[in-house]
Amino acid sequence: MNDRIKKQLAFSLEIDKEKNVFRQTHLSGHGRNENDAEHAWHMALMAYLLREYSNEPIDISRVMLMCLIHDIVEIDAGDTYAYDEKGLETQKERENAAKERIFSILPEDQKTELISVFDEFEENQTAEARFAHALDNLQPLILNNSNEGGDWKEHGVTASTVYGRQSRTKLGSEKLFEVTDQILKENIRKGNLPE
Amino acid sequence: MNDRIKKQLAFSLEIDKEKNVFRQTHLSGHGRNENDAEHAWHMALMAYLLREYSNEPIDISRVMLMCLIHDIVEIDAGDTYAYDEKGLETQKERENAAKERIFSILPEDQKTELISVFDEFEENQTAEARFAHALDNLQPLILNNSNEGGDWKEHGVTASTVYGRQSRTKLGSEKLFEVTDQILKENIRKGNLPE
Repeated sequence: MNDRIKKQLAFSLEIDKEKNVFRQTHLSGHGRNENDAEHAWHMALMAYLLREYSNEPIDISRVMLMCLIHDIVEIDAGDTYAYDEKGLETQKERENAAKERIFSILPEDQKTELISVFDEFEENQTAEARFAHALDNLQPLILNNSNEGGDWKEHGVTASTVYGRQSRTKLGSEKLFEVTDQILKENIRKGNLPE
Repeated sequence: MNDRIKKQLAFSLEIDKEKNVFRQTHLSGHGRNENDAEHAWHMALMAYLLREYSNEPIDISRVMLMCLIHDIVEIDAGDTYAYDEKGLETQKERENAAKERIFSILPEDQKTELISVFDEFEENQTAEARFAHALDNLQPLILNNSNEGGDWKEHGVTASTVYGRQSRTKLGSEKLFEVTDQILKENIRKGNLPE
């Protein structure tokens, strides 16, 4: 086995750990907490199915790759809940160290390539990144909606906080934000999300 | 919300159930059983990283989509272990019924599209399908190898049975089969896989 394929397989094994990084979101049917690998799978597939709603033309295979790798750094840095203000302060620093360690397991050219996709997602300046972010918001929303807003209730989150984050979906997809807005309004009406 | 997007979101929610379909493979570090969504995520990403080893030129985004959806039917049909002969006899029938039910949740055009990708994987006649199958074999192999062959031991599987399945990797990638062969020989040598 040459050095290149050894590195590729070592990275492949390393990312298995992403299946042990659990998020605040719960699976539908009032299930257990979801992990990052499941979230990434779901998000990539939803991106494909909903690609017609991107505001701008997109390279869907780049969006899917972005979805698949966007949480790899959480193997070291852990999941930071979207509404955890303290965690969010140190998130960038923790994730940068993780990015360097984990992607360095790959051959140099693939390290560079994957970091460029990862950074593109983080910087959120391209049509692909903006659409991927729309799915990063929508995927947990449909699960939480199916569970009567259990995740919001658990964390005492209010509508204005949720709108603060979810409104960024508009940058990637006006249409998916319309849907989001309807889901949020319905949950406010039902008392699942306090105003 | 119009009928089209309602169907797309209903399908997106339905496939969440794939996270509850557990496989015989265990996560690295002698972890718990892996589920189908995690397997699909891992396999899609490995396909991307190892695409240079496909025997033939491939459309990697089609391969990745194939990886992401190839086990959706197991939501109804359950996971059939690669070396479970009884289960394999009825697998096709169970999976066909599941395919019809689950993909019918989508709008007609997307149902047709996804079934075509799913069938392409199953029929294993294109370069994309053959490469996806190589990853469907390699992904659990690297986990099981990291766990000293625990999954083989649990099921009393022998080398000839494993070679029977793994040798199909050659159709998609001679190079990945070379790697597979080395991993298997090493496990036979260590007594993890009886001859």
